Amino acid sequence: MSKPLNIGMIGYGFMGKAHSNAYRRVSNFFETEYKPVLKAICARNEEAAQKFADTWGYESVETDWRKMIARDDIDAVDICVPNNLHKEIAIACAEAGKMILCEKPIALNSEEGEEMCEAVEKAGVANMVWYNYRRVPAVTFAKQIIERGDLGRIFHYRANFLQDWTIAEDLPQGGAALWRLDVKAAGSGVTGDLLAHCIDTAIWLNGSIDNVTAMTETFVKERMHNETGKVEPVGIDDACAFLCRFGNGSMGLFESTRYARGHKALYTFEINGENGSLRWDLHDLNRLEYFNHGDEGTVRGWRTIHVTDGDHPYLGNWWVPGLCLGYEHSFVHQVADFLKGLETGEPAAPTFRDALETQRVCDAVLASAESGSWTDVG
Amino acid sequence: MSKPLNIGMIGYGFMGKAHSNAYRRVSNFFETEYKPVLKAICARNEEAAQKFADTWGYESVETDWRKMIARDDIDAVDICVPNNLHKEIAIACAEAGKMILCEKPIALNSEEGEEMCEAVEKAGVANMVWYNYRRVPAVTFAKQIIERGDLGRIFHYRANFLQDWTIAEDLPQGGAALWRLDVKAAGSGVTGDLLAHCIDTAIWLNGSIDNVTAMTETFVKERMHNETGKVEPVGIDDACAFLCRFGNGSMGLFESTRYARGHKALYTFEINGENGSLRWDLHDLNRLEYFNHGDEGTVRGWRTIHVTDGDHPYLGNWWVPGLCLGYEHSFVHQVADFLKGLETGEPAAPTFRDALETQRVCDAVLASAESGSWTDVG
Amino acid sequence: MSKPLNIGMIGYGFMGKAHSNAYRRVSNFFETEYKPVLKAICARNEEAAQKFADTWGYESVETDWRKMIARDDIDAVDICVPNNLHKEIAIACAEAGKMILCEKPIALNSEEGEEMCEAVEKAGVANMVWYNYRRVPAVTFAKQIIERGDLGRIFHYRANFLQDWTIAEDLPQGGAALWRLDVKAAGSGVTGDLLAHCIDTAIWLNGSIDNVTAMTETFVKERMHNETGKVEPVGIDDACAFLCRFGNGSMGLFESTRYARGHKALYTFEINGENGSLRWDLHDLNRLEYFNHGDEGTVRGWRTIHVTDGDHPYLGNWWVPGLCLGYEHSFVHQVADFLKGLETGEPAAPTFRDALETQRVCDAVLASAESGSWTDVG
Amino acid sequence: MSKPLNIGMIGYGFMGKAHSNAYRRVSNFFETEYKPVLKAICARNEEAAQKFADTWGYESVETDWRKMIARDDIDAVDICVPNNLHKEIAIACAEAGKMILCEKPIALNSEEGEEMCEAVEKAGVANMVWYNYRRVPAVTFAKQIIERGDLGRIFHYRANFLQDWTIAEDLPQGGAALWRLDVKAAGSGVTGDLLAHCIDTAIWLNGSIDNVTAMTETFVKERMHNETGKVEPVGIDDACAFLCRFGNGSMGLFESTRYARGHKALYTFEINGENGSLRWDLHDLNRLEYFNHGDEGTVRGWRTIHVTDGDHPYLGNWWVPGLCLGYEHSFVHQVADFLKGLETGEPAAPTFRDALETQRVCDAVLASAESGSWTDVG
Repeated sequence: MSKPLNIGMIGYGFMGKAHSNAYRRVSNFFETEYKPVLKAICARNEEAAQKFADTWGYESVETDWRKMIARDDIDAVDICVPNNLHKEIAIACAEAGKMILCEKPIALNSEEGEEMCEAVEKAGVANMVWYNYRRVPAVTFAKQIIERGDLGRIFHYRANFLQDWTIAEDLPQGGAALWRLDVKAAGSGVTGDLLAHCIDTAIWLNGSIDNVTAMTETFVKERMHNETGKVEPVGIDDACAFLCRFGNGSMGLFESTRYARGHKALYTFEINGENGSLRWDLHDLNRLEYFNHGDEGTVRGWRTIHVTDGDHPYLGNWWVPGLCLGYEHSFVHQVADFLKGLETGEPAAPTFRDALETQRVCDAVLASAESGSWTDVG
Repeated sequence: MSKPLNIGMIGYGFMGKAHSNAYRRVSNFFETEYKPVLKAICARNEEAAQKFADTWGYESVETDWRKMIARDDIDAVDICVPNNLHKEIAIACAEAGKMILCEKPIALNSEEGEEMCEAVEKAGVANMVWYNYRRVPAVTFAKQIIERGDLGRIFHYRANFLQDWTIAEDLPQGGAALWRLDVKAAGSGVTGDLLAHCIDTAIWLNGSIDNVTAMTETFVKERMHNETGKVEPVGIDDACAFLCRFGNGSMGLFESTRYARGHKALYTFEINGENGSLRWDLHDLNRLEYFNHGDEGTVRGWRTIHVTDGDHPYLGNWWVPGLCLGYEHSFVHQVADFLKGLETGEPAAPTFRDALETQRVCDAVLASAESGSWTDVG
Repeated sequence: MSKPLNIGMIGYGFMGKAHSNAYRRVSNFFETEYKPVLKAICARNEEAAQKFADTWGYESVETDWRKMIARDDIDAVDICVPNNLHKEIAIACAEAGKMILCEKPIALNSEEGEEMCEAVEKAGVANMVWYNYRRVPAVTFAKQIIERGDLGRIFHYRANFLQDWTIAEDLPQGGAALWRLDVKAAGSGVTGDLLAHCIDTAIWLNGSIDNVTAMTETFVKERMHNETGKVEPVGIDDACAFLCRFGNGSMGLFESTRYARGHKALYTFEINGENGSLRWDLHDLNRLEYFNHGDEGTVRGWRTIHVTDGDHPYLGNWWVPGLCLGYEHSFVHQVADFLKGLETGEPAAPTFRDALETQRVCDAVLASAESGSWTDVG
Repeated sequence: MSKPLNIGMIGYGFMGKAHSNAYRRVSNFFETEYKPVLKAICARNEEAAQKFADTWGYESVETDWRKMIARDDIDAVDICVPNNLHKEIAIACAEAGKMILCEKPIALNSEEGEEMCEAVEKAGVANMVWYNYRRVPAVTFAKQIIERGDLGRIFHYRANFLQDWTIAEDLPQGGAALWRLDVKAAGSGVTGDLLAHCIDTAIWLNGSIDNVTAMTETFVKERMHNETGKVEPVGIDDACAFLCRFGNGSMGLFESTRYARGHKALYTFEINGENGSLRWDLHDLNRLEYFNHGDEGTVRGWRTIHVTDGDHPYLGNWWVPGLCLGYEHSFVHQVADFLKGLETGEPAAPTFRDALETQRVCDAVLASAESGSWTDVG
């Protein structure tokens, strides 16, 4: 029997579009008991919200999120608004007994995140944070290889997320499209936006991070603010790098920037173990590079695995070997797993609690960059 | 004003799935006057057809294609059945005044194709053949670069389509999933299945082909037939290669096989001109490699263009720079262009007539392999 | 006990330099009984020859090759002059009882080659042709993998050699640096210059070639001739492609051109067998790509083997793992193997007789391009 | 007029071989006034030294370096012994008025290095340290691109040097081949051995480093010592990573390890500027990757430049476009530049003084790893 899962979405930006697409597609490709229904879209700008509803087939429009979460016909709320609004909405949703799917990072900082975790756990509502890159099949497959112990003892983990879209000095900050440059809305710059992804994957693949030493930089110190029309100081980190020690004794190296000319959205990671290594990058997301030291010596080499076979994670639901998936499929997979979690009672990760761990690392990174000292993850 | 375009689909195999997905998604990403409505799915197996209808939201099920094309509420018929059925259905559709979207290759041979062209042209119905790879953005972008003359005089074109899925001798032929190995259903092997794609792209990018010399091989001579249960001779070409001369004086080299161990679906092409060269492959479909001889000498090199920017073909409708599209998007683009063609009156290519030109090259290739002589394209 | 092997070199062009370097370096890296001594350099231009002798340490200079091969203190003659001079010199050397190391292709055609073979075999002198690419370690290693049967039954072999240095129409033909464009000196264009390398490797790795169908083109029909100062017809093939059948039942595809913009000296080959595939290219010559179908299914992928370990062919004599060799090392290896052949009595390949087989394929290719018919290799 | 430069080499290990090869080859490819003569090899083991002399053509053998540097017929001394011996020998050479070519790192620490600088400067003798990777043509070419300002303001520099040869716990430390694992001989582990290369290149390309925060790890805590035969604590750093700030305001990220499974000698760097970026790696050393933001937007992409043309650095002296050089050529180029420096009076870099700057960064890195604090470069 098919059960509807009524979705109320807050926000219709880039992520609203990515999530809506995921809800609409999941049932064409994955058999799940629960099936998402696009019940309501909520945004302050009613006209824009209506246009979005028309495009994506939302049944209704709300302009006040409190009204939407009060509706009985909403089962789950998807929070796709800037980071500074996550906490208040999420706690209200929990109190209203709604399931919550929240964009990452979980909040402005771990104090907020902790409050959110407590609220959802007290309410007992299903909750998840959209660290979607876990569900790129090649990344999920990396997790499987690591979990079955094929790499042996881990020595190194390194990741970076390189972009180049904010180099121009006349790019403004703030407002609808550029809230990520406004520290009040975003909380931080690349740390919360990009490194948070790297950290989420790292913890998932390689376990907890104990302590960090970090460095941040704001290359362009002032930008015109879209909301005030004035040139204002830039409060975010344009770039951030940190070293860390993992709980398993391995060394970590992370870097993120929006000033690496030539890289659009190059998220890469590499993990080196005693018996093998893996690496991946988002620009060629269907490939996983794998070095297996167990191969006979003279014919050892990095294997480029095109992760598109029917027995690779999620792939049996799509096309045939050799045919690529794209960015958006990671969201479809995350919805499929969330729905399956409802069915089995085994919550889909990352939950709010999982995402809080990532937030704690982000906080430690920013604190270390400020203090110039090695900082324990709280 | 939005206008529904009622689709009746015949067949629910791999291509039925790819096309259904395209019809369902196009209006979320492309603004078009006509909007596809999944009106009916037609297949002999009613139960399987119903399941497909449930998954994809088809409103009704038919088991007799003649009945379906007789329905007034069907505007366009999508032919997704084996090649030996294309002609009869297409001609009947044309006579019934239906638009037709037909899977490739257009037919078993160019005689059939010619009949089909005459039928649609006489009926004046919109018609298109699903050579989807033209709409991979990197391929479309290659076309733009060539059309504006950036490569100069062309010297060489080479393409291949390499797979490895039929090497096992115990793989049977025939039946639902394996009709491509049955010469009666498919007409030919890799020539119609894979080389046809290479030829379609080649003609589109580099113009007509004058003559060919070819070689085919059937490595596994007998296979169990799924429909008869008996071991029967294999009638298809397992591999085919040919040399050709293009109308513009350039030389062509084409190869296709299902016996190239290590390649899942590696479709590649390269074109070399006086002032530059381009190459592409389906395994990394977001990338276009471009060599520009106009660059200053010491810093010349093949550029790997990640074709994911807003000003690349089709990309403005999707995500943000650096985020990959996949295989299925080519079909969405083809539907979007077909719908736009209805709007503007400028038919979307490749039409039946365009696809017939590709078929004529296929016929010449097979004839040359048979005769051992250079053969003119008819 | 060390034995000198006195070398007399004829010609001091690009190949004279490559060979001289090989003779000078071999004893620093390889322990061999025979050690080359640079006894004499021979060229018509005495001043230039003397300069070359000074640079490379040749003990003496000759301007008449007949005089040099008459000298008692010359053991082996290295023929580094244009193709049209190979036959006469080689036969004279054989008659004088000298060992011969001859540049490739062996001669203008296989009739000449046959005479040369008969001469050296009658004289019983050691003889070798400089198809140096066999001794790039990654290529030698490919041979070892194939010889131990790891690829299983072979289905496909493809190779090309792409350059772009003759596209400019104002490039002249003929004379010292450009004799390769003069049909009288070279005999053919890319067929003897580049495809001959591809064919030599192919026969070595995959066995004999039975028959071919070929196509050639001369894109620039006339060029100024350096020796006459007049614009003259171009007699060479600028580009050549051919299909073939190997004796083992596999299909072959070869192409060569000097009009592939963006490629400097891109010699590539790929071989596909039932159980595995290999590919290599000269622009990244330390790497061998290897697909092993025996790997567990989900982690199969093309391995990029950096052929620089001590247990890879020839590498134990050089540096440490990860450190690249270059183009010139192939010549050092060929000399080392030639010297070892003298020691063991097992002649180093390719001998004149081996090179004649390659020449026969070249002849068949050119004949087929002329006749437009499939042509048996003589 | 040709002038001999009589070389006395101390040590015959891996570097002794690399340098000897460079001295022997330089005059075949580069026209220089001074020409190296292999006058003497010095090592305690006379038999082994004699064998080395025979292989490389050294005219004489010494077993006491003090005796060798006292000889009048020695112009320049090449120091190829473990790091703990550099200082004493170098100062003695300076006092004896000999030119010095010293292996890197300059010494065990910057105090030693400072003494050495003072000695050579006081003596006024030519001096150089073998940071050979500056002379890989692609790296030299990167320097030229940066120097002419093509990258604009620099934001980021990152480099790593990854190996995997010490993972096995039963690998011993100390003695002839493994002194790099013995802290008494080497002074440090990967910091002096590998990171020193990265730092030398970084300072050359991007200017001075102001301060660092670092982390080191010794994964295998005890190893059998080859000289004592006992299991002893391992005193070196197996891995080291650091963040830094350059004087030009850019951020740096460096990492080195011998525990990155799958990497033999992967030295990579990348530099990101406002207008372009460059990257390179030692495993494919003929290639330089270049992103030029000045290219027209839609056709921008990383260019892979095959640095093998006649107008690339050093390449005019070698072969023809497309033909690769290898590791050893960097040493030949360094000798050529040293000789040219003697001719022009403009000393070839890096001098002892230049190498001391690299040593100071190494010292700061190790101090920071010890203290856990950001540390200024002394």
